[in-house]
Amino acid sequence: MTRPSRFDILFEPVRIGPVTARNRFFQVPHCNGMGRAFPSPMAAMRGVKAEGGWGVVSTEQCDVHHSGNHQRELRLWDERDIPYLARATGLIHEHGALAAVELVHNGSHVANLESRTVPIAPSLRLTRGINPVTARAMDKSDIRDARRWYRTAAVNARRAGFDIIYVYAGHGMTLPVHFLSRRHNHRTDEYGGSLENRARFLRELVEDAKEAVGDTCAVAIRFGVDGLADSRDGSKDEGRDVVEMLAELPDLWDVNLSDFDDDGVTARFGDEGHQEKYVRFVKSVTTKPVVGVGRFTSPDTMVSMVRGGTLDLIGAARPSIADPFLPRKIEEGRFDDIRECVGCNICVAGDRSGVPMRCTQNPTMGEEWRRGWHPEYIPPKDTDDTVLVVGGGPAGLEAARALGQRGYDVMLADRGRQLGGRVARECRLPGLGTWARVSEWRLGQLRRMRNVQLLPDNDITAEMVLQAEASLVAVATGATWRADGIGRYHSEAIPGLEGVPVYTPDDVMDSRLPSGRVVLFDDDHYYMGGVIAERLVEQGCEVTFVTPESLVSAYTQLTAEQRKVQRRILRTCAAVHTSTTLARTEPGTAHLACVFTGRETAVAADAVVLTTGMVPRDELYQELARRGEAELGAAGIRRVVRLGDCLGPGIIAAAVHSGHLFARTLDTALTDRAPYRRENVEPGWDLPLPPGGEGLWAPGDVLS
Amino acid sequence: MTRPSRFDILFEPVRIGPVTARNRFFQVPHCNGMGRAFPSPMAAMRGVKAEGGWGVVSTEQCDVHHSGNHQRELRLWDERDIPYLARATGLIHEHGALAAVELVHNGSHVANLESRTVPIAPSLRLTRGINPVTARAMDKSDIRDARRWYRTAAVNARRAGFDIIYVYAGHGMTLPVHFLSRRHNHRTDEYGGSLENRARFLRELVEDAKEAVGDTCAVAIRFGVDGLADSRDGSKDEGRDVVEMLAELPDLWDVNLSDFDDDGVTARFGDEGHQEKYVRFVKSVTTKPVVGVGRFTSPDTMVSMVRGGTLDLIGAARPSIADPFLPRKIEEGRFDDIRECVGCNICVAGDRSGVPMRCTQNPTMGEEWRRGWHPEYIPPKDTDDTVLVVGGGPAGLEAARALGQRGYDVMLADRGRQLGGRVARECRLPGLGTWARVSEWRLGQLRRMRNVQLLPDNDITAEMVLQAEASLVAVATGATWRADGIGRYHSEAIPGLEGVPVYTPDDVMDSRLPSGRVVLFDDDHYYMGGVIAERLVEQGCEVTFVTPESLVSAYTQLTAEQRKVQRRILRTCAAVHTSTTLARTEPGTAHLACVFTGRETAVAADAVVLTTGMVPRDELYQELARRGEAELGAAGIRRVVRLGDCLGPGIIAAAVHSGHLFARTLDTALTDRAPYRRENVEPGWDLPLPPGGEGLWAPGDVLS
Repeated sequence: MTRPSRFDILFEPVRIGPVTARNRFFQVPHCNGMGRAFPSPMAAMRGVKAEGGWGVVSTEQCDVHHSGNHQRELRLWDERDIPYLARATGLIHEHGALAAVELVHNGSHVANLESRTVPIAPSLRLTRGINPVTARAMDKSDIRDARRWYRTAAVNARRAGFDIIYVYAGHGMTLPVHFLSRRHNHRTDEYGGSLENRARFLRELVEDAKEAVGDTCAVAIRFGVDGLADSRDGSKDEGRDVVEMLAELPDLWDVNLSDFDDDGVTARFGDEGHQEKYVRFVKSVTTKPVVGVGRFTSPDTMVSMVRGGTLDLIGAARPSIADPFLPRKIEEGRFDDIRECVGCNICVAGDRSGVPMRCTQNPTMGEEWRRGWHPEYIPPKDTDDTVLVVGGGPAGLEAARALGQRGYDVMLADRGRQLGGRVARECRLPGLGTWARVSEWRLGQLRRMRNVQLLPDNDITAEMVLQAEASLVAVATGATWRADGIGRYHSEAIPGLEGVPVYTPDDVMDSRLPSGRVVLFDDDHYYMGGVIAERLVEQGCEVTFVTPESLVSAYTQLTAEQRKVQRRILRTCAAVHTSTTLARTEPGTAHLACVFTGRETAVAADAVVLTTGMVPRDELYQELARRGEAELGAAGIRRVVRLGDCLGPGIIAAAVHSGHLFARTLDTALTDRAPYRRENVEPGWDLPLPPGGEGLWAPGDVLS
Repeated sequence: MTRPSRFDILFEPVRIGPVTARNRFFQVPHCNGMGRAFPSPMAAMRGVKAEGGWGVVSTEQCDVHHSGNHQRELRLWDERDIPYLARATGLIHEHGALAAVELVHNGSHVANLESRTVPIAPSLRLTRGINPVTARAMDKSDIRDARRWYRTAAVNARRAGFDIIYVYAGHGMTLPVHFLSRRHNHRTDEYGGSLENRARFLRELVEDAKEAVGDTCAVAIRFGVDGLADSRDGSKDEGRDVVEMLAELPDLWDVNLSDFDDDGVTARFGDEGHQEKYVRFVKSVTTKPVVGVGRFTSPDTMVSMVRGGTLDLIGAARPSIADPFLPRKIEEGRFDDIRECVGCNICVAGDRSGVPMRCTQNPTMGEEWRRGWHPEYIPPKDTDDTVLVVGGGPAGLEAARALGQRGYDVMLADRGRQLGGRVARECRLPGLGTWARVSEWRLGQLRRMRNVQLLPDNDITAEMVLQAEASLVAVATGATWRADGIGRYHSEAIPGLEGVPVYTPDDVMDSRLPSGRVVLFDDDHYYMGGVIAERLVEQGCEVTFVTPESLVSAYTQLTAEQRKVQRRILRTCAAVHTSTTLARTEPGTAHLACVFTGRETAVAADAVVLTTGMVPRDELYQELARRGEAELGAAGIRRVVRLGDCLGPGIIAAAVHSGHLFARTLDTALTDRAPYRRENVEPGWDLPLPPGGEGLWAPGDVLS
């Protein structure tokens, strides 16, 4: 395949200060949960991006000093940290990309719980979050120190092989943006007051880096163009002023939105390219190249960003996670092969949970080094198995696709006329339209495989399995939302449910809807409770939202959506009861109880909707298990396994991963040893103590 | 000094199966935030406990398998993990103690976000917390597997040098306790139903371990004796039945309470020895030795536990953190030297934050290896400095104490008649009585030092400093609660405060109290808002508690107190508004606003109390800084520093640490390099892939 020439513009090289990117595809810095704790997974993941055609591949944020310690992200405190980063830059360069590092001092954004150092800030300020830690105001000598730490880190970054050095002033997280902000900066010296003064520290950091390494490395500013409005006087946002003031200073502007909830917005709350209206001005005030993001997966949108004069470089974080080979697929005109990001932010949730991130679309994400998984290549089949996959949801589709890619003969059966399982159903709920990409991409791939038979509209029984002439059977029949209220709070059914009309998300997705006054009890805490409430409100129900958690859809804190979700639910539902459980029901009434005191409240309820948990739909598996090895063996079946929600109900990403794992290993059994490589901390018992350390205690020094 | 003979009983050896503890002091397993991420700090911390005289020193929980992966605690998945543990057992043995390991499979207590393995449980169950992950029901082959994992771990634990192997069935966290629990276990096979069936798995694990290593290692059960009541039918708790049924099975019973919030209760909610009434029965039903905890710091209480027939071994976690040398001090009759745990659980908060734990009383905790700090020994002075410490709060007291221990001449001045600073004030607030131990222990030590002058009732001015003939000046003058409402939510003063009576915690501690209808706005989120509310309610105020967080005293989730705090506040305050800010006030009225929607509510307010943040009381420091180096030098002063809250307002533990750090280093400046040793992950790029791994991708395998 060749690409239409209108996309050629995306493959033009772009000069960035002293270096040149081979094309306009720029993987901007993004966190990933690997950082310093998982160095080889981090390096391999970045290397795969370079292999996939990105012209620039950046790290996540990288601490320059122990006094701004993020604990989990990368660090470049001194030369001991260079080898970790050099492994990544080596792999990035091997594939012809430029390597960028995002240098950071987190200031009052972190509490330094590990180093126990008092955090620093332009002015006295409580640290972010709820840690009882106050950052102190930096004096002039602190500012000189911080400049020196950044400069040393820039020098060490060059030694680690980086081509682009970022000074990160985005997302409200770092010292230079704290200096810029009137909310953070109340100084009266030359670093406070006027915007010019508040921008001084950022200017100095960029100048210092250019002076130190600017002959061979580009120096970039990453900056949130909004977020500098004065909350009190309503005066205009100073974002544009900052760009105008420092327009020609950096070699590259990476521009985004200050609040990560807005910048990394999910598909539920924002569309592809939604940052454009904010960053469009930047190119008009600087001659330097500009990169920006927008969850870009459409090659035409990318071209319009360049042609329309908004961006020089197409920035991407999430689309590069969902498809590390996005640039190469465009380059080769293989548009249908692009695995589009669904914008669910489960990647962000992985990072925020302190584990290597997962991706709904790309099951190999985080597994590149650990299990040796590549997003595009997979070993050819090494057995003579024929595989029957029952269930065409995310797990079944991915299992069939990857098995098909390996060359296995596969039958994929589903009881429904439409393949897709839960994603085909959930994508019709409010805000979840992109979920359909999970099945659409896989179906697109599957339809091209001659060795895979798609068998919709087939409700497979045990007898049919025995006659299918398959040697491996994967049951991926999904799960059902439970109607008894059992979940995290209740381990037994909620009393009285038999007396009221009870609905589950399955009912709602099947268009069996309640009416009137509805009590929705959410004990799931991810997106389902919220989107079901939205659907019910759309249908005219008067919804009372009840959750034992203290926040609505509490898990969506990890996907950077929670504030938006709770705002929407509060505005549309009739009432919201947090920290509250549904204790019992009787006809017409739901009795709610405070989870702390047990205090009860009665609310009128014409119906109850429960989002409390899922039960595997595993009857077929259980029936096959009952048949026993002899009967299965006689039918030529050597193994029957469950995949996805049928094995353990969870998120779509877990189902896709489950299907992929089976396709790679043909099994789901737990192994005694970890089925992946792991890195331990290198014990440093005899490391030298730093200056000022006393050495291990010497009882001769007793003075008690 | 020698101890009275009534304490001799504490130093009797105790036989535990095939091994013998040298005395009755037993450091039970406790988490500490070090685990697998900080192996040398972990080992050194355990070694110091053994040196301090504990007869048994245990690890924190230690995973036996990747399918029950805690992510942060220790792991013993295979022989690669042995060296980490062997370092700890080596140090423990070096000091004559027995080493115990707490083996764990966390079952549905964990979500396996790192390994991406579906968690396992006796029956289908959502995992703990809010991760959207469901644990699957184990089949017989899973049970056989799990037994094998435990057995292999026991063998590897012996190879690592452990003397006691724990099967952990406490705190509701592990597979064996999930099998025991009717709430978790709905099985219909021989592992479910009757208590005998539900106890089968635990019995098998203990039997397996005894068979594997019981010739040389003791096998212990750690068990929560409550928590097995049936929530539905109100039937009796089965805890006693379990102990009776398995009475002679283990070599040791370690008994506690199932809910960690109760077992690890803070001093605010429970007293020393409060577990006794629950565990007293155990010794009456088994001949095996029994260990239990109770935040024991009183030697007399310990003796009464043994003589009264409740315990054979005095278990301790927190008291061993506050004073690793507790046993040795009792042994030597140095009772006044005991540094008593204050029961604040800031250690738990460290663990829950994923960092090496801190301790309010023991600033060396977590610093043993990292900085080479010992809790008892400190290097003698190596300069000729004379030190003036201004301020006798936690930071000043600890600085003076540790400097005095080093042999420095120290003057400790305080403007108040009573030394102690914030702890002397806060300890009079409801539930905070033990805070006084912070100053009492230090004052006790200081009063014995001839080289330290205590100068209460001295309001030190800059002039006085210049005339003090000190070469080092440490300003530890604390902080003041702010009255303008600035904190996390507001970066500018709350409008309208000038029109209403405004109070702060300082007012309340000084007995300047509001009356009538009081709106308490808490934007601090640790304990202060809650205890001030309690005090106001005691005084007859009608309190409306307002917080922008979704929980009352949200940070106390990390100290295992939050549910108790919110229950108490809900029961005593007139109203509680979570997720709400104090937007503005006018005479008689406070206008509250929802943090999500901005929706306002007006409430009647005769007064407003603000717990939103603290400002350093650093006028003396700033004045000295203004004098400049020349004037200070002329007075013989070579350095002026701030300590504790005066440097960065925070928790008491941070202030004590700050004072100690200064005493060790005579400085507070940030160094370019980290002032402590750190361990990096050992890059494992070329580690072999486990069986089933495909090797790093080979483009020759392309099949796309």
